[in-house]
Formats: sequence, structure tokens, C-alpha cells
Amino acid sequence: MNVNIESIIRNYDLDRVSVATVASHTALQILRGASRLGFYTIAVAKPSTAWFYKRFSFINEVLEVDFSDFESVIDYLIERNTVFIPHGSYVEYVGWRRAISMPIPTFGNRYLIRWEADQRLKMKLLGHAGISIPKSFDDPSMVDGPVIVKLYGAKGGKGYFIARDKDELIRRLSSIKEDFIIQEYVIGVPAYYHYFTSRMRDRVEIMGMDIRYESNVDGRVFGFEEPTFVVVGNLPMVLRESLLPTVQRYGEDFVKAVHELVPPGMIGPFSLESIIRDDMSIVVFEFSGRIVAGTNVYMGVGSPYSTLYFDKPIDMGERIAIEIKDALGRGRLMDIVT
Amino acid sequence: MNVNIESIIRNYDLDRVSVATVASHTALQILRGASRLGFYTIAVAKPSTAWFYKRFSFINEVLEVDFSDFESVIDYLIERNTVFIPHGSYVEYVGWRRAISMPIPTFGNRYLIRWEADQRLKMKLLGHAGISIPKSFDDPSMVDGPVIVKLYGAKGGKGYFIARDKDELIRRLSSIKEDFIIQEYVIGVPAYYHYFTSRMRDRVEIMGMDIRYESNVDGRVFGFEEPTFVVVGNLPMVLRESLLPTVQRYGEDFVKAVHELVPPGMIGPFSLESIIRDDMSIVVFEFSGRIVAGTNVYMGVGSPYSTLYFDKPIDMGERIAIEIKDALGRGRLMDIVT
Amino acid sequence: MNVNIESIIRNYDLDRVSVATVASHTALQILRGASRLGFYTIAVAKPSTAWFYKRFSFINEVLEVDFSDFESVIDYLIERNTVFIPHGSYVEYVGWRRAISMPIPTFGNRYLIRWEADQRLKMKLLGHAGISIPKSFDDPSMVDGPVIVKLYGAKGGKGYFIARDKDELIRRLSSIKEDFIIQEYVIGVPAYYHYFTSRMRDRVEIMGMDIRYESNVDGRVFGFEEPTFVVVGNLPMVLRESLLPTVQRYGEDFVKAVHELVPPGMIGPFSLESIIRDDMSIVVFEFSGRIVAGTNVYMGVGSPYSTLYFDKPIDMGERIAIEIKDALGRGRLMDIVT
Repeated sequence: MNVNIESIIRNYDLDRVSVATVASHTALQILRGASRLGFYTIAVAKPSTAWFYKRFSFINEVLEVDFSDFESVIDYLIERNTVFIPHGSYVEYVGWRRAISMPIPTFGNRYLIRWEADQRLKMKLLGHAGISIPKSFDDPSMVDGPVIVKLYGAKGGKGYFIARDKDELIRRLSSIKEDFIIQEYVIGVPAYYHYFTSRMRDRVEIMGMDIRYESNVDGRVFGFEEPTFVVVGNLPMVLRESLLPTVQRYGEDFVKAVHELVPPGMIGPFSLESIIRDDMSIVVFEFSGRIVAGTNVYMGVGSPYSTLYFDKPIDMGERIAIEIKDALGRGRLMDIVT
Repeated sequence: MNVNIESIIRNYDLDRVSVATVASHTALQILRGASRLGFYTIAVAKPSTAWFYKRFSFINEVLEVDFSDFESVIDYLIERNTVFIPHGSYVEYVGWRRAISMPIPTFGNRYLIRWEADQRLKMKLLGHAGISIPKSFDDPSMVDGPVIVKLYGAKGGKGYFIARDKDELIRRLSSIKEDFIIQEYVIGVPAYYHYFTSRMRDRVEIMGMDIRYESNVDGRVFGFEEPTFVVVGNLPMVLRESLLPTVQRYGEDFVKAVHELVPPGMIGPFSLESIIRDDMSIVVFEFSGRIVAGTNVYMGVGSPYSTLYFDKPIDMGERIAIEIKDALGRGRLMDIVT
Repeated sequence: MNVNIESIIRNYDLDRVSVATVASHTALQILRGASRLGFYTIAVAKPSTAWFYKRFSFINEVLEVDFSDFESVIDYLIERNTVFIPHGSYVEYVGWRRAISMPIPTFGNRYLIRWEADQRLKMKLLGHAGISIPKSFDDPSMVDGPVIVKLYGAKGGKGYFIARDKDELIRRLSSIKEDFIIQEYVIGVPAYYHYFTSRMRDRVEIMGMDIRYESNVDGRVFGFEEPTFVVVGNLPMVLRESLLPTVQRYGEDFVKAVHELVPPGMIGPFSLESIIRDDMSIVVFEFSGRIVAGTNVYMGVGSPYSTLYFDKPIDMGERIAIEIKDALGRGRLMDIVT
């Protein structure tokens, strides 16, 4: 499965590095940031949306490709000395197995993708970090409060259901044929934290946070339909400052856990997704090992939290570009790609 | 109805152009932006709020006027070589007929005001653009789901009601004496898109988006009162990037429709107001042919989306001022006023 | 109770002023702002969170102290020529009586703390300002609609309950043993306004506004638990511009009331906390006489409203630092501390 990225990098012209990503998710943010830092920028787009990405002058080139044949652009990307920035839509479009073996220098630790593809591995990694996570139930009869059931095929805000108690759970499970997991439904408010693990500056930065905006649950539904949870946007938020040390500690503990279980450890952006209870405890139910779409709330304008580390507000796209530039300046590109 | 704007402009001293607007709605944003670009700025205020606008040094002059006599300031505005920026409060204060015939060079296409004053014309324009709109029902007995009924006198978040189904609709209509229209109640989350049609740069820019903050429906009402929908503020949001191409296409298709049906076509800011369903389809139920109040979320700080087109974040007030300056530089002021 | 602050200041080296605050609440914002304006910055931290504040290079020094012994750092702060910035967590940690008599030059009017500690004094001050406040009921049998009951020990979003009507109120009060007050439950949406009273520029600035993000009431609770109101974060908002003159007038009237009742009058940041009804009336149910946590939504990035007064967006931390710098430049430090 290991791709020889080092040998690819060895042939790169490091004075002419390009930054590429798949044209969706956070592509505008990533490529705008890269362009500001002086990189040549490439969007790899589905034919149906390439026209849109061609509207923007900070994108130097839009490659059109059918993602079943994503590999066909690899030679060109390598010729252009490309650092490829992965995100959730890329992983979705090519599938996690192909993403792990894609022969292109990829920013971050691509081996995390496998851990994210498996709900049990995911919880194991959070647990190893010592982060507070929701209780899991193997046996429905042990359930003692509201639970959320995630069907194996759950995707994009559908394929979940919430049961108020054991009785409702057992009744609804009786018609389910797929595999599923049962988790405590944590009562509180959602908050998603955006971190950046800098190998160059040797620190874990809190870069921002957001709340998801979900259809239809965040609309005025008046009980006309069952709630669904399809993310259609994001809202900025700031956290009560007394909760920040916990968020920082969770971030650092997670990085440590990844270092121990998923070599070569964390590189660049990641996210922890939480519920904050009314006793101010923070329960993490999910993570993402790369840039999350919620960072778009800060696109171009920068986040309040980024100003704790930098002289002016920056966004995650710029943060990634700064790290690549730092790494190139120190001859350490191999330390930030896999 | 046509005002001879061209002859007014011909007498302008184009080195000393002023920007004026009515002191409410988005006046602070508009005048601050104009001031930054070097224009002399004038607020036309109701006597009751003039004191407030005098607090701000970027407003060079506050004219006090009773809006029943708005025409009394026109001579002075012309003497000051004014480009007047219309917004919703102006149209509300003077009425749409007077706004259309006001003898002052007015940024944008003032003839859209007439289309907006008539719910059926409004839907016709959106339909002509090929944009997805809610189903309308002429016959209550054809209704097959939740609907929203807009009474003819609906204004400011009141004069609407929502009926769960045909039976509730017919029961509630029995006591209604005014004219009304019945529309499908689209289930999802609201999102309002801010566009700018640049004649100078020949493009349609997505400048931002917002969610409305409405009293009392967005409060903790606990069923104590019927929900009402009075807009008291706005919240910033960003959209899932995969929805942006649709938003861009809707914007460009709308501009095309205006070009075909409402000469001289779209100029400057406009807005589409939508519900996003949980299948990620976007249904537009309303438009505004000029700057909307939701753009205030970016006042002075600029929007994430604006950075896709400009080197730094800008707001809609600055965008308008840039367009006027561009037009003046090219001797094309007549192309952006009506 | 009066501390001789003037004699402390007289011994200060005014070319080497430090800014200090307690490490929580808005400390990052305050110290970052102070650092940008060139002040030496000191965080006074609980031992459990000092590590977190040491992460940030804009904090020159982190003092660790058990807050039962807060006075032990005073000598050092004075040696460092410190202007101390108080906030809600400081008042909570040391208690309001100690905060009032703490022998350290404290930015703002510390005597307001006493008014805030007593719900009846608090309402008296708002009433004296002529600001619209909720009805209070001494006699439960006079209640004619929904009410909120605040128990004497109410803190941090707990210790409240809402009763739908007189009957529910009387039933629930029957089991309450503490002191309490009964207030009209105002139906509408919450909005919190951040003001800055500048002694140096002789004006009351609207610096921003926010909405609180509260657990669990703002989560997807689906009726699984009783609503609670623990603030865990804040969201930015902007207000309908036609409401701004009222917000400005409330701010100025409040400053006038403080001037009359609480010498030496208002200095620096304060907040009014309101519900906006659907008739657009604004009812203020609370105030804070110093910086509020909601200002963190603008940390480092600045607020839209700040750009009405300054050339670029600033946050409340920077605003405080600017005022201190202005005062030092004019030899008027004593005018902004108590």
C-alpha cells in the first residue's frame, strides 16, 4: 500500500511547487491561500463544475476529469511538482482505498483515512487519546437513555436515527437489516473545532470552530417532517474561554495518540466534533484527519483564533500554504507529505 | 414614467460625485464604503433619526426630510452631483411608484421595483430564469402538503400563515377577506445569497450570504405565542462548496432573465432568497433587485466570498463604490444608473 | 472601601505601563489587544490553566495564583505599573466585595460591581436610565402571562425556571425555599449589545453585538431533557439598521444614569442584554458594567460596528488598549481607572 512518495519528491523542482486539490469542499479556500503564498494552483474538477472554478483568477488551471479515472491526471500533477491537498470530497469521490494508495505527494497523514472509514477504529483512536466519547452499546437491552443509531451505510446526514429509550430503540431496530452501532445520544450543543498540527513550528494550533447548518433540522419545520441532518453550510462561533484549555488539551492528546498509533503521526489540519453538555463537559463523537468544510466560515477573512498565533487573521487554506512554504524553506517537504 | 437621467448626468461635475442614500437599512455600510473610495457622502434622514447618523464622521452631510416631501431634496442632491443608492427602506418610505419616477440618477435598475411590487410578476421573472420556485396553488382543494399563505397586505414578517394541510388551509381561509396567494411550504433551511452584477467587469459575483434572525420564531418561545417572522437582524453563514455552482448559475440565469424582460437589465447588487432542502435542492421564493440588509453582516469587515474576486475582504457598500469609481474612470456612469 | 488608587498611580513609571487580567473570559482578547498597542502583558492564572496561556507569545508573563490569595500578586503588578482589566470571571473568582476593594488601578468603574450583585439595584439603574425593562411581580397572584423566576443563587444559566402562567408559577413556587424574583418572560429573540464609553473621545460607541450559544437549549434536545441555559459560546449577529438608533440611545441613557447614580460614571466597555419583540421594541433584562464574553466573537478580526468609528475593524481588547494609550498620551490615566 505504501507509495514511494520520497522518490517522486526527489525529482521535483522545489522552486516551482504547485498546490492542487479537488474542486469542491474547501477548494476555493485552499487554492486562494496557496495563490497568496505564491504557489501555482490547480483544481481537479468534475466536468460538470469545472466552469465554475474557471471563474476565479487565483486558480491557475482547472483540470477536468471523471473521478473513476482520477489517476489519469497524476502524471501531469507530478510534472507540475504538485503537493496535493486532500479533503472529504476527494476521499468520497475516489474512495478511501484509492486515496491511500494514490501516487501523489499528499499533504498530511493519508493513513488516517483508513481509521476514519471504520467507526470502531475511529472510536478506538479517540479513546486512546483519553478524550471523552459517547458510551457505546453492543446490547440494545443495556440502553438506559436516548441513543443515536448509525447504520453502516450512513452518509451525508442520513442513515441515522435517534431513539428516546430502550423500548423505542428495540422497536425500531426490529426492521433494520444492515449493520449498525448504538451510541449514547449526548444532550447539549454541537461545536466543531479546527486544529492545525504544525511540524515546522512544533505546535498544535486552534484555528477556529464552527456550527453546522443542517437541513432540515435547523429550519422551521414545525413537525411537518422527520428531522434530517444534511449539512448545507456552516456558522462561525466562539467558545467560552474557560473551555479553551480543554479543547487545546484534547487536540494535543489526539495528536499524541495519532503519533503512537498511525505513523507518521498527525500533520496539518484536523478536526474534533463535539457536543458540549450543560455541565460544560465536552464529548467528542467524531474526528476528521484533514481540513473540514467548517473552516470555510473563515475563508479569506481569517478566524479570531488564528490571530493568537499570527499577526493577522488567516484561514486554514493560508495556514496550509504557510506550512508548505516553511517546509520548502527548510528542505523538509518530506516531513509534511505522505 | 421615464425620467431623463441622461440630461441630469450631462450637467454633473464628474470629478465631484457624491453618493447619497436614505438613512436606514444599509446606509452605514453604503456611505462608509463610498467614503473610503473618496466620495462625498450624504444621508437623507427622517428628522427622528438624523441625530444618530450625525454621530459618524464618514457621513459628510445629513439632510433631514419628511419623506412625504422627499422630492424637496432632489435639487440639492443634483447640485452635489449625486449618485443615489436605493434600498428597501427607501422604496418603503416613498412608495414604489415614486421610487420609479424619482428624478435623480439612481444606481441599479429601478424598473425592477415594479416587478417586486407584484407577487405574480416576481414569480414570473424567477420562472423565466429557469430557477426552481415553490409550487403555487390557485385552488385550495388542490393542495397536497404544507402551504404558506401570503396575504396581499403582508409586510415585515406579518400577514403570513402556514397551514399543515388542505383541511387546515380551507378552515383558515374561510375567515380571510383580503386577496392572497397560496404557495407550497418548502421544508428545509433558509439561505439568502448576495450577488453583485458588475457592468464594468462583466461578471456576476457571489458577494456573501446570510440567515435572517427573526422575532419571535428564532427565540425561546416554548409555544407561548404563535410564531412570527419579523426580521430584526442577520447572521453570517457559508455554504457547502458543492452548492456554490448552483448558486452561481441561479445568479447568472437571473441576470439573463432581467436582461430579457426588464431593460436595461441587472446592474449592481441583488439577492435571491431560498430554502435548501435536505436533498440539497435549492428553491428560491423571493428576490430583491438591490442591496439587501443581510449584507450588513459584512459591514467594514468584508465577506469570505468577496475575497474570491478581490485582494482583500470588502463589503457590498465598498463594492458599489468601486463600481461607481470604475464607471467614472471609463466615462460610463450612464451604464450603471437609471 | 475606597482604595487610594491615585497614590499608586503617582508612583507608576508611565512609560512602562503593563496591562494585566485574569486568565479566562476575555483574557486572550484583552492581552492580544494590549500587546499590539505595545503594552507589556500579564495573565494572572489559576495553576490548572496557566500552561494554556503560556502557549501564546503575546502574553509576556503568566502569574500563577490561587485566587483565594489573589492579593499576593498585587505588589508585583504595581511594580510592573499595571492597569488591571476586570471581567466577569475575575469578579466571580475573587467575589464582588474583594473586587471593589482590590488595591490595584482597575480599568473602568469598579463600583458598578455592587449594583450588579443585587438584582433590585440592577433594575433600578436600568429604570433610572428610562430603558424598557421587563415587568416585575412581587405577588405571584398578579401574574398575567409567562414569567421567569430567578432564584437568589442563580448562576451560570441554572437556577432559573420559566412558568407558562399563574397556575404553573404558584405550583412550582410551592417547593422553592430560597429568595427569588419574578419577572415577565419577554417573548422575542435575544440580542446582546457591546458598548464602549470613551472618556478620551467623549462618546459612546456601539462596538458589536452577539447571541449567546447555550447548552442545552440551543442543541437538538427533542424534549429529552428540560431546557437549560449554560452559555458555552457566542455567535456574531448584526442588527436591523432601523433598530440601531434605539440601541445607541439606550447606551447613552445608561451612561447618563451611571453618571448620576454611580460616581465616577461609566468608563470603557459595558453591555446591555435584551430581548427584541416582534413589534421591534427592545426590552433590556440585564447589564454588565465591563467587557462581556460575547466580544470574543470579534477577537483579532474586529467587528462590523467598530469600523463606523475606526479606520479598520478592531476588537474590544484593542479598544481598551487604545483608550489607555490615549489617556497616557494626555496625562489622564486617573480618568479611566478606579
